[in-house]
Amino acid sequence: MSEVLANMTITLDGYGAGEGQSADQPFGTIDAERLHAWMFDHRDENVEEIAAIDAAGAYVMGRNMFGPDRGDWDLDWHGWWGPNPPFHTPVFVLGHRPRASVGMEGGTTYHFVTDGIEAALEQAREAAGGEDVLIHGGPATINQYLAAGLVDELRLAVVPFVAGAGERLFDPSTAGVELTPVSSRTTPHVTHLVYRR
Amino acid sequence: MSEVLANMTITLDGYGAGEGQSADQPFGTIDAERLHAWMFDHRDENVEEIAAIDAAGAYVMGRNMFGPDRGDWDLDWHGWWGPNPPFHTPVFVLGHRPRASVGMEGGTTYHFVTDGIEAALEQAREAAGGEDVLIHGGPATINQYLAAGLVDELRLAVVPFVAGAGERLFDPSTAGVELTPVSSRTTPHVTHLVYRR
Repeated sequence: MSEVLANMTITLDGYGAGEGQSADQPFGTIDAERLHAWMFDHRDENVEEIAAIDAAGAYVMGRNMFGPDRGDWDLDWHGWWGPNPPFHTPVFVLGHRPRASVGMEGGTTYHFVTDGIEAALEQAREAAGGEDVLIHGGPATINQYLAAGLVDELRLAVVPFVAGAGERLFDPSTAGVELTPVSSRTTPHVTHLVYRR
Repeated sequence: MSEVLANMTITLDGYGAGEGQSADQPFGTIDAERLHAWMFDHRDENVEEIAAIDAAGAYVMGRNMFGPDRGDWDLDWHGWWGPNPPFHTPVFVLGHRPRASVGMEGGTTYHFVTDGIEAALEQAREAAGGEDVLIHGGPATINQYLAAGLVDELRLAVVPFVAGAGERLFDPSTAGVELTPVSSRTTPHVTHLVYRR
């Protein structure tokens, strides 16, 4: 049975992105390299968790995760991930403005969905063809899916520093959400927590 | 060597207490029984973590953890824990107004410290006689000790619901704090995380 997964790297104080995101600073006031050092500098320690992110049959992400442009689309912007993105599947980008789908090398196609999180999830489920759908971020997007009770499994990578400000997972819009703790694993650089609905 | 430990139960969104704390609702808008169900309803699953809280040679706590009164002391108030508190050691209560020490049954003595967190810690260390000192809470007090770099080991019990508001551990006053992940353990009702300085 296809499941809805969500995955996010957060700081000790629960931030998944900083303030003031821009083309130069994709995570704004939070140093992206420091936030994701567990994936890039310590890949061997975290093989299983990284593989789990890569295994989805389709992805959903918020517009602010897709790019730094706001308002009207910058049609020259094709995501942060270069000409051959690591998804190799359909990726559904949430937004308010229509835009034609963009095919990339390696099997990734970006689709732009304007009719809400449930419609995006439905399209992603269909595109995943029985495989899991991953809600990839950012925090505001995962919060919406959590608040709607649509996430089967939430995987957190908690990095051990305090950011002090930013965009927070579990913001007040998620008040009342209750999950079941499934597992935890500590490495010297990150703590992996898995929860289920 | 005596160490400085800190311990706190927090929600998924990092709150250790709610808003509007009062004599009737010690944790305010957060249901205290739900927050601490892991200790009281599931004691057998968490014997080691509970024993670690009880093992300190002296305790430090903030005034708001000691009682619901604010401003001038209510001298009839002797803490939340009844005539024979579970500490059985000296307990140093931080505050701004002097008050005479209060001896309780079972070896607990409440001392009221008005000259700051470092002075309280120094007195607690001396009173602990080589045993560890536990910074017991609430969140604002632990945040002060974390920001000052005075906590050797932080033990968190993360309960799996979102409160939405309250008094937050790792609030912005702790921005920049970095810790080393040591261990994690998941039970069906709580996730235990241990960090060291």
